[in-house]
Amino acid sequence: MLDLLFLGGTIVTADKDSNILTDGMIGVSKGEIALISEIPKNSADIPDAEEVIKLDSEIVMPGLINTHCHAADSLFRGLVENLSLEEWLQDVWKAEKTILTPETTRLGSYLGLAENLLAGVTTVLDMFWYPFETAEASMDLGMRLCTGGIFIDFPGVGNRTQEQYLIEASDFCAKFQKSSFIFPGVMPHGTYTVKPEHLQDAKKIADEYHGIFSIHAAETLFEQSDISKRYGASVIRHLDNLNILDDRSILAHCVHLDDYEKDLIKERRSTVAHNPMSNLKLGSGIAPVQSLLERHVNVTIGTDGAISGNDLDMWLSMRLAATLPKGALMKPDIVSAKEVIEMVTLNGARALGRANDLGSLEVGKKADIIVVSTNAIHAAPLFDPLTHLVYSAAKSDVKHVFIDGVQCVKNGSILTVNMEDILLEVRKLKNPILESLKQ
Amino acid sequence: MLDLLFLGGTIVTADKDSNILTDGMIGVSKGEIALISEIPKNSADIPDAEEVIKLDSEIVMPGLINTHCHAADSLFRGLVENLSLEEWLQDVWKAEKTILTPETTRLGSYLGLAENLLAGVTTVLDMFWYPFETAEASMDLGMRLCTGGIFIDFPGVGNRTQEQYLIEASDFCAKFQKSSFIFPGVMPHGTYTVKPEHLQDAKKIADEYHGIFSIHAAETLFEQSDISKRYGASVIRHLDNLNILDDRSILAHCVHLDDYEKDLIKERRSTVAHNPMSNLKLGSGIAPVQSLLERHVNVTIGTDGAISGNDLDMWLSMRLAATLPKGALMKPDIVSAKEVIEMVTLNGARALGRANDLGSLEVGKKADIIVVSTNAIHAAPLFDPLTHLVYSAAKSDVKHVFIDGVQCVKNGSILTVNMEDILLEVRKLKNPILESLKQ
Repeated sequence: MLDLLFLGGTIVTADKDSNILTDGMIGVSKGEIALISEIPKNSADIPDAEEVIKLDSEIVMPGLINTHCHAADSLFRGLVENLSLEEWLQDVWKAEKTILTPETTRLGSYLGLAENLLAGVTTVLDMFWYPFETAEASMDLGMRLCTGGIFIDFPGVGNRTQEQYLIEASDFCAKFQKSSFIFPGVMPHGTYTVKPEHLQDAKKIADEYHGIFSIHAAETLFEQSDISKRYGASVIRHLDNLNILDDRSILAHCVHLDDYEKDLIKERRSTVAHNPMSNLKLGSGIAPVQSLLERHVNVTIGTDGAISGNDLDMWLSMRLAATLPKGALMKPDIVSAKEVIEMVTLNGARALGRANDLGSLEVGKKADIIVVSTNAIHAAPLFDPLTHLVYSAAKSDVKHVFIDGVQCVKNGSILTVNMEDILLEVRKLKNPILESLKQ
Repeated sequence: MLDLLFLGGTIVTADKDSNILTDGMIGVSKGEIALISEIPKNSADIPDAEEVIKLDSEIVMPGLINTHCHAADSLFRGLVENLSLEEWLQDVWKAEKTILTPETTRLGSYLGLAENLLAGVTTVLDMFWYPFETAEASMDLGMRLCTGGIFIDFPGVGNRTQEQYLIEASDFCAKFQKSSFIFPGVMPHGTYTVKPEHLQDAKKIADEYHGIFSIHAAETLFEQSDISKRYGASVIRHLDNLNILDDRSILAHCVHLDDYEKDLIKERRSTVAHNPMSNLKLGSGIAPVQSLLERHVNVTIGTDGAISGNDLDMWLSMRLAATLPKGALMKPDIVSAKEVIEMVTLNGARALGRANDLGSLEVGKKADIIVVSTNAIHAAPLFDPLTHLVYSAAKSDVKHVFIDGVQCVKNGSILTVNMEDILLEVRKLKNPILESLKQ
C-alpha cells in the first residue's frame, strides 16, 4: 500500500533526459518516490494508496531549489531603495544590527521561507546571521534548507567575534551533519568582507563535514576592482588561489567574470547561483549566463533577499534567466526553457551535492513534488509544458507542495505554520524597522 | 446618494502630484469620481451610497493602461519560440492566416483582454486583424479599448486589399467616434510592412477623426538598417519625413534609437510604448527608457501579445520597466517607482488623448478603479505603497476591478463574461493551431 498516489496530470520529471509523462502517476512511500509511470490502461493495475491526489490538467514537477536567499531579510522588504550594492549594504547592515535578534531572525525566516514555499520552492540555500533560527523556521515549515555559520570580518549582528563565528559554524555542521532536511555548510559573506585566512578557516569547517561553501562573488564591478587592488587577483582567481573552489562551492551572482574566471569555475566544478532580479534592481549588471552554459558550468537560480528583490519569486527569476540573456545579447535562440527548468531542479540538487535524492522525479528520490495549476487564463492554450512553466506560469499557479511526501501547501495555503500569526508579528515590527535607519 | 463608495484603504491617486491618501474614500456617481478624500473623523459625515466597498489594508489605484497589445494573439501563446522578430513573424503570420476568422479573433480577444482585465488593466491599446471583433469582446468585458483598422502591404488575414483596409479603418473610426469605451484610431503594422503612401493614407484617416495612430517602430536593429537602406532615413526620421509624428502617435517598442530620433519623438510629443518582456524574449534588445525619461518623452508600457510574451502581465512589465534600465546601465538610482506608476496610468491616458478623464483618481474623472490586496506574504512588511506596487506586487494581488463605476472583477473573478466557456472554445482550437504551422 502506497502512502500517497498522484493520479493524472502532466508529469515534468526534470530527469536527465527531460522525460515528460502526459497522463502519469507517481506513487510515494515513506517520503520517497516508489513508482512513476503513465497511468495503466486497466484501472485494476492502479496501485492502492492511503491518499490519492487526483489531477487532470495540472503539471506535476519537482519542488524548486532556490540556491541564494536571505530569507529573514524579508523583514526589510522595500526599506532601502535606489542604492548601489555598496551604499545599500551600509543601510542594510544598520537596520539588521538594530532589529535582528535570534527571535526576529526566526520570525523573518518564517516570512521569507514561507514565500518561497508558496511559490513551490522546497529547498532553499540561505545565508544569514542566525542559522540555527533559520533552520528552526525551515523545519517547522517542513522545508529543506542548506545554511550554516556566517563569516564577516567586523562585529555584525550580535557583535560576535571571529572565534564565535567559527564555533557556531562548527556546531551547526555537527548538529545537522546527518539531517535529510538541513544541509549544513559555511556562508562567508564575500571576499571584500572576509579576509583570506577567515575564508580558509570557513572552508576547513565545510570540508571537515563535507558541507557546502557559499559566498557572494563577482557581484559588482566595484568588488572586482577592489579585490584586484587588494590581492592582485580578481575575485574568482583570488578564491582559487586560496584553494577554496571545488564542486561544493556555490558562488552567488558572478555578474562580472572574464573568460579565465569562467573557465576556472568550470574546471573546479563549482556552481554559479544566478540572481537576475537582484542584479537588475541593485544596478549590479546582467550576468553572463549564456557563456557559462556554453562552458557547461552548473548554473542555478536564486531569488536573493527581498531587501534587494523585493520579493522571493522563483518564477520571475526563471523567466528572467530565460529572457535576460536573449535581450542583452540580442539572440532569441539561447537559454532554452529546458535549461531553465534544469537550473531550478537538478542543477540545484547537484550544487547541494544532493542529486542522488533531490532535483527530479525519479524512483528512489525524495518525494519533493509540486502541483502547478493550468486553469488560469494565462495558461490557455498550452502547447508545451516546459515553455509554459518558464514563460507563462506564475507563482500564483502553485497549488500543492509536498516535501518528503508530506503536504505543506494545499490549494495555495500553507498547512504547516499559521502564517496569520507570523504576519501579525511582522507588522508589529514595521515602525521599529523604519526607525532603525534614522539612528 | 452616491452609486458607489470605496471606504478605507490606501488611495494611490496617481495624479500629477502623486498624492496618496492613507485612509481614504472615493465616491462614484454615474460612472465618475464624485469625491475623493480622507475618511471624515465624524462618521456622520460619510456620504450615503447604494453600495459600499469596505477596505482595510488594500491599495486603491487607477486601472492600468496597456498601450501595446495584440489580445487575440493569445490563441498562439507559446506556439512560436526561440526565433528573432523577423523569422518569428513568418510563422506567426502563417498561423494567423490559417486560424483567424472574425469569430476566432473575437474568441482570442476575449482571452487576451480578460487576462489584462484580471491583472487590473482597464484600458488596452490593441492592434489586430479584425478590430470590430476585438471591440465587441472588449465591450462585453466592460473594458475600454483603443483600436482601429490595421494596414499591411500584403494580403494578410482575410486576404483584404488596401482599399478594404482603408474602408474598414474609416468605418471603424466613424462608428466609434463618440464612444467613451472604444477609442478609434489606425494601426499600420510597421514601416517595413507598410509603404509610405499607405502610412500617410492611414494617418489621414486618424486625423479626420482625431484618432490615435499607432505603429511598431524601431523594434530591431534589422528593421532600422532595412528602413535606412530603403528610404535613406532611419525609422523615426522616416515617419517624421512623412509628417506622421504628433501627440496622437504611439510608437511601440523604440528599442533602437539614436539621440536625434529621441529628440524628435520628444519634439513631436509622441508616445513611446515600452514592451520590456517582448523585447527580451524576441532578442530585440533593451529599450533606452532612461534617456527617453531624461528628455521627458511620454513613456508608457505595453505587454505586447502573448505570442511574444508569453503572457499579458502588466505587473511584470512594470517591474521590468523599473529594473531593466538599472541593470543594463548599472545605475540603481534611475527610473523611480513613481515614474513607473505614471507610465501605466497618467502617461497611458495622455497617449490616448484621454488625460482629462482617465489615468488618475480625481474628481470628474471616470471611475476606472482597481483594488489591490496586500494580504499576501510578499506584501509584508509594506513601507511605501509605490515601491510595493512596482517591486513586490503581482497580478494575483488584483482583487477588484471597476470600469466606469461598474464592477468587472470581484475577488479575482471576471463578472462580465463567462470565461469557462471561452476557455473551452480556446482549447478546442489547440490542434488546428498546432497543425497550422505544418502547412
